[in-house]
Amino acid sequence: MSASDRAPLGASPRSRVRRLPERAVDDRRVLYDIIDAALVGYVAVVEEGQPFVLPVAIARRDDTLLFHGSSGSRLMRTLAAGAPTCLTITHVDGLVLARSAFESSMNYRSAMVLGTARHLRGADADDALRRISDHLLPGRWADIRPPSRKELAATIVLGLPLAEASVKVRSGDPEDPIGDVDDPQYGSVWVGTVPTRLVFDTPVAGADCVEGAAIPDYVSAWVSPPSTVDLRSID
Amino acid sequence: MSASDRAPLGASPRSRVRRLPERAVDDRRVLYDIIDAALVGYVAVVEEGQPFVLPVAIARRDDTLLFHGSSGSRLMRTLAAGAPTCLTITHVDGLVLARSAFESSMNYRSAMVLGTARHLRGADADDALRRISDHLLPGRWADIRPPSRKELAATIVLGLPLAEASVKVRSGDPEDPIGDVDDPQYGSVWVGTVPTRLVFDTPVAGADCVEGAAIPDYVSAWVSPPSTVDLRSID
Repeated sequence: MSASDRAPLGASPRSRVRRLPERAVDDRRVLYDIIDAALVGYVAVVEEGQPFVLPVAIARRDDTLLFHGSSGSRLMRTLAAGAPTCLTITHVDGLVLARSAFESSMNYRSAMVLGTARHLRGADADDALRRISDHLLPGRWADIRPPSRKELAATIVLGLPLAEASVKVRSGDPEDPIGDVDDPQYGSVWVGTVPTRLVFDTPVAGADCVEGAAIPDYVSAWVSPPSTVDLRSID
Repeated sequence: MSASDRAPLGASPRSRVRRLPERAVDDRRVLYDIIDAALVGYVAVVEEGQPFVLPVAIARRDDTLLFHGSSGSRLMRTLAAGAPTCLTITHVDGLVLARSAFESSMNYRSAMVLGTARHLRGADADDALRRISDHLLPGRWADIRPPSRKELAATIVLGLPLAEASVKVRSGDPEDPIGDVDDPQYGSVWVGTVPTRLVFDTPVAGADCVEGAAIPDYVSAWVSPPSTVDLRSID
């Protein structure tokens, strides 16, 4: 790892979080957690001044954010050629219901990574593809056919260093100013949060799945525990 | 609505979906559905060649995508000044487990909107803010304090025309080539999908919520039905 990879998060003027600085979290561990909990990120490519934002499956290898795409994609080739980019990941954790429209908000964990992606090749690309599979589909790799030479040629694998990044987190209650808390009309309105999360439901076998093939244990393990919601408790 | 607003989706060369064209859906109704089901989008801003991707709460008013931010945000001011932008929305609908790494994928609905945002002012901005609230927190507006003049001055409200957009959807089973389906080693591996979705859990009252304030019915209505997952059924 180079010295610059160890630069504190948010050290550069352009990645400093300018708005709501109380929501900036200067902690590489939080950055890792946001990435490691995510399935997809949103990566930007600029061509002749026009930005494009593409959703990409992501994974992390130490201080590198990994993603891939088709070598037939012009935007992926632009990234592979070293265009400046930004990859943003956000988890929406809930709705925040305050006493005013202005303080109404969302709880979230968000990371924005700036830099230039490196085009990974050979064994380095193979390793990255396996890590992306292991991240999105843990346990699956051992069961499936690895990429062929032709499939590898059709794939661009990119690594974006986690060298310049900013992290923003909002959690917990709404924060109404005292004027609204004490207001005769709005003070007594119910305030709080409605948590949100991504859940994994019961696996569905494909039409050409051989009869009697059992759902692998590693797939069953992905399924979210039953919801804790009890609708009766909120009637 | 201008004539260009009615241009078919994907009519411009730059927004045409170049990869996997079988996943492009040329239907404005699908675009609306993707937007109307989303809480957030990812908007790009370019400054001196460096792109930034910001998560923003979104809503739709006819053929305009609405979002807002702080007037203290340099990036929001750049958008308000008419910088070219892209706003992408993606729903991750599931994991797709094929017999090969290459065919493993995700199910998703994604929309990419290109263009230039318009800075909304006055009654137009007021209406947009209310629509964003109604979209994210349906029913809430009537209960809460509307924005003050000072709060409005601190807010930039933007409208991005749905004039140039591309939509991509993947759904259903993995699509293994026949060579993998018939393969002695990989043919019998379990294949299928694991559906994913965002759920809204039980509301949590804020610490300064007045005692006895009931959770409003419109909030209870947001809560997702209990999960259909039966862990025993997948043992």
